[in-house]
Amino acid sequence: MTDLIRFGVSIPDDLLAKFDVLIAEKGYTNRSEAIRDLIRDRLVEDEWSEADHDVVGTVTVVYNHEQSDLAQKLTEIQHRKHDLIISAVHVHLDAHNCLEVLIMRGKSVEVKKAGEQLISTRGVKHGKITMTTSGTDIE
Amino acid sequence: MTDLIRFGVSIPDDLLAKFDVLIAEKGYTNRSEAIRDLIRDRLVEDEWSEADHDVVGTVTVVYNHEQSDLAQKLTEIQHRKHDLIISAVHVHLDAHNCLEVLIMRGKSVEVKKAGEQLISTRGVKHGKITMTTSGTDIE
Amino acid sequence: MTDLIRFGVSIPDDLLAKFDVLIAEKGYTNRSEAIRDLIRDRLVEDEWSEADHDVVGTVTVVYNHEQSDLAQKLTEIQHRKHDLIISAVHVHLDAHNCLEVLIMRGKSVEVKKAGEQLISTRGVKHGKITMTTSGTDIE
Amino acid sequence: MTDLIRFGVSIPDDLLAKFDVLIAEKGYTNRSEAIRDLIRDRLVEDEWSEADHDVVGTVTVVYNHEQSDLAQKLTEIQHRKHDLIISAVHVHLDAHNCLEVLIMRGKSVEVKKAGEQLISTRGVKHGKITMTTSGTDIE
Repeated sequence: MTDLIRFGVSIPDDLLAKFDVLIAEKGYTNRSEAIRDLIRDRLVEDEWSEADHDVVGTVTVVYNHEQSDLAQKLTEIQHRKHDLIISAVHVHLDAHNCLEVLIMRGKSVEVKKAGEQLISTRGVKHGKITMTTSGTDIE
Repeated sequence: MTDLIRFGVSIPDDLLAKFDVLIAEKGYTNRSEAIRDLIRDRLVEDEWSEADHDVVGTVTVVYNHEQSDLAQKLTEIQHRKHDLIISAVHVHLDAHNCLEVLIMRGKSVEVKKAGEQLISTRGVKHGKITMTTSGTDIE
Repeated sequence: MTDLIRFGVSIPDDLLAKFDVLIAEKGYTNRSEAIRDLIRDRLVEDEWSEADHDVVGTVTVVYNHEQSDLAQKLTEIQHRKHDLIISAVHVHLDAHNCLEVLIMRGKSVEVKKAGEQLISTRGVKHGKITMTTSGTDIE
Repeated sequence: MTDLIRFGVSIPDDLLAKFDVLIAEKGYTNRSEAIRDLIRDRLVEDEWSEADHDVVGTVTVVYNHEQSDLAQKLTEIQHRKHDLIISAVHVHLDAHNCLEVLIMRGKSVEVKKAGEQLISTRGVKHGKITMTTSGTDIE
């Protein structure tokens, strides 16, 4: 477990008043929590920018399952990258459209590459890579 | 079903050569697919910027399950927003850390609000809202 | 003038250590300054998302001055929007290419619209709208 | 000079209709121009991600000129980096606030570093690095 440290931040009162309004809107009950989130967000971005950093992220794809052998192609890519994929969840959005979220873990460069390969597959309507963290490096 | 249309794009040869290199790196086998992806990405962004547009997205949170009643708080928020949440997947990242991905559908403004509430909960280490599409509006 | 307030932030020691490394790399000599910057960045984003908020920003365009009547078209658009444009600076990048930065001030929605019109002009190779602040709202 | 090439893009009619609405709103009169812009934007992003690529960009800072020796500090940093700075424009936003835009050219990693140093200077209220291109690589 890590220890909590307390340090002081100097800030103009006007700026703090505006920040308090913003974080209340977002649902924060506490300035420290909001500031920790700003800090963590910057650090996660930094982790992902190093090619060989261990990261956790998701790849989200939306596609039409009726498209000839698309589902099969996506499954094949996933099996080739199975060591990067922790798990996958599939949602039937309507009669035609599927959404799949893959939870991935590995070197930043490899997770990105696998994500790009899935997203660039012909017939995938929309895809996104979401960068998050294993939580071990970022308390 | 929608019909395919073919239209011509004029482009300097140098620019096209560079684009071809970039999309090959990303895994595209086909210029049309790469261009459709650029277009869809811009349109998804646009959908999410309209407060009452129906959208599909995910909310990803990483947290320490040992943190006092955090898991319960997150579950309570989710139940209050259950009409927005299609499904959730949970991964045990290590002895302490959990990752949860919620797949959400609803008005853009409501999905964002629910996501912000989950992310701002004290003890959530990192959170992200990922914007995608139901696929019905964006072929 | 605004008054400085000092408040305390609680943060895990590991997280703070990582933040200290990051901000040293970026050139910060002081945690408060780094945190104020994270806060201001979020607030500027927020200002720009309100259509009728007074904002300051820049529009950067790169174009080939030899392209038939492009420079003239850009000048005409600028004159029509002259009440939004504080000043403009022009750089001759090479024998063919020009870069122009317009410093703009006005309602967020109007600055964006003028910027998009300049960027979408045929022959403009690249354009960007940069969001900043008048500094009066954000100390 | 580069030659224009024309190539065909296949796209669902619904998707094209939505794209046409979006680009009309942004001021495009022409699909090819809008698609070239999407392509160039992706390529500029790519150029900046390579540390030793020659790039052109701007650094925008807003600050209070009354802050003790801030203006002088910023000038000193600029002189140390003078080989990266093509030109600078200064605007007096009000009695207190200044905006300065520096137009920069050099290796991506060096332009970023100089920008971060200016932005992180104590008293700079807001700063942004804007990535664009020399136009020679990107037609």
